Amino acid sequence: MDDRELLNVVMGIVGKDRCLDDCAEFACGGQVMVATTDMLHRSTDFVEGMTDWQAGWMSAAVTLSDIASMGASPKFLLIAVGLDDWKSLKDVMQGAKDCCTKYGTEIIGGDIDHHNELTVVTTGLGLVDRRDIARRAGTWPGDLVCITGIPGQAQAWLDGYHQFEKFLFEPQPRVTEGQLLGRAGVSAMMDDSDGIALSLYDLMSANDCGFAIDSSKLPLPAGIPAKQALELALYGGGDYELIFTIAPDRFPVAGVDATVIGTVVPQRTATVDGKPLEKRGYQHKWE
Amino acid sequence: MDDRELLNVVMGIVGKDRCLDDCAEFACGGQVMVATTDMLHRSTDFVEGMTDWQAGWMSAAVTLSDIASMGASPKFLLIAVGLDDWKSLKDVMQGAKDCCTKYGTEIIGGDIDHHNELTVVTTGLGLVDRRDIARRAGTWPGDLVCITGIPGQAQAWLDGYHQFEKFLFEPQPRVTEGQLLGRAGVSAMMDDSDGIALSLYDLMSANDCGFAIDSSKLPLPAGIPAKQALELALYGGGDYELIFTIAPDRFPVAGVDATVIGTVVPQRTATVDGKPLEKRGYQHKWE
Repeated sequence: MDDRELLNVVMGIVGKDRCLDDCAEFACGGQVMVATTDMLHRSTDFVEGMTDWQAGWMSAAVTLSDIASMGASPKFLLIAVGLDDWKSLKDVMQGAKDCCTKYGTEIIGGDIDHHNELTVVTTGLGLVDRRDIARRAGTWPGDLVCITGIPGQAQAWLDGYHQFEKFLFEPQPRVTEGQLLGRAGVSAMMDDSDGIALSLYDLMSANDCGFAIDSSKLPLPAGIPAKQALELALYGGGDYELIFTIAPDRFPVAGVDATVIGTVVPQRTATVDGKPLEKRGYQHKWE
Repeated sequence: MDDRELLNVVMGIVGKDRCLDDCAEFACGGQVMVATTDMLHRSTDFVEGMTDWQAGWMSAAVTLSDIASMGASPKFLLIAVGLDDWKSLKDVMQGAKDCCTKYGTEIIGGDIDHHNELTVVTTGLGLVDRRDIARRAGTWPGDLVCITGIPGQAQAWLDGYHQFEKFLFEPQPRVTEGQLLGRAGVSAMMDDSDGIALSLYDLMSANDCGFAIDSSKLPLPAGIPAKQALELALYGGGDYELIFTIAPDRFPVAGVDATVIGTVVPQRTATVDGKPLEKRGYQHKWE
């Protein structure tokens, strides 16, 4: 039983269409409001050495990333904090606040609870024009597969390359890029928080086509042997880059630093250099 | 350090006006959207004997109650579930779904996480017309102090009166009543989840007046010695009744089963039968 199999249990209860994208969506005046929630906690997400401020920052960042991946502008954040030590609260809240402020988001509510380990649940709300919204479904054979930034850097820290600490501890959600890409008319988009490979499999399950990745095009973390760097980029978790598909004549998009890493193909398979892409990455195994 | 003192830490970071009501609010088209989030977990909230289905029900109910207390109609719920045993997921989700369905709310998103104890964070979104919104601030000397239903029944179960199990395990948020009260123009409203006494102190901190409660008017849990029943009603937690103030000529409100328990007074004190009401109830003490 892994995370994605467990999601099937939820789909059976709330409906499959409520589990397809990084955010839910509903009408709000003439726009679309998107909404998403994320639970993070000490033993899994806030790794050893991460400060309370960074835990707060990260909690806000992962949620803003989900909003960015819909092409939306994040507006509001609610934050529930479960504390094993009340003295953590101030720094956790300040970290979340600083991240929100950087990306134009306001903390509008929350809850405080006692817990046996630091647990933070952030719920984000964003707005996007109907015509600019990006979803996982909608890609088309011949489209380019692209990614922002350099994938694999967060996982590199976990694998001992501690020069990448900032990428894991203080992720920078692609809020501006997400909105520019939405307006540019990407055909599909999501963030790659569980790694490129799993993201492509998620995109494949929402589309009736596949992906051919060219490893030579992948931007890789610097200073790491090539084979390991490729492994980190394809299968590592903890990044908050945007992975998207777009018609060739719409790329590049002004203001967005992104790299073409492959193409969308008619057959429903994911390959890297012609060989099957493994379906693995960051996900919890349930006993 | 108690919950309300800890809230001051949060106010210092996100602003006092973001911590005043049961919900945050923002414009959504021509209406007001209200938003609230609650964290519950096994060791504190899901007491021994409560099923996973009931844990899910309760999680949704407490959030819908916050929305009801603003006079709003609950529309959407997001739910993050931290699981120590993945096999709990189905029943937790079904309980939340059933509660949402009963009250006209749709589950639109969520997150699943591994955790060392069952932890559920629900975020609710509701809509209300601008003129019908109820807040904690706005009460006026001479208004009636009223409460829906019978307070103290949830705490009665905790004190050994197990005939009250349903009240603690499957709370019924006052969703219809909240909207009717909002439309009837209550001057202040909140839910009494931490007990009547603490709720009155919360209302007092949002208003420049006080409350005189007449204990003989309080509806009390049946089959419990009078003195203990009064203690449960005033200071017990776990209820999700609405406590509100309203101008005398606007009460009763058609369709709402509520009791007048006192009056709003000009001086900023809370009394019961002329004696000071103690400022205690359900809140966590932080070491």
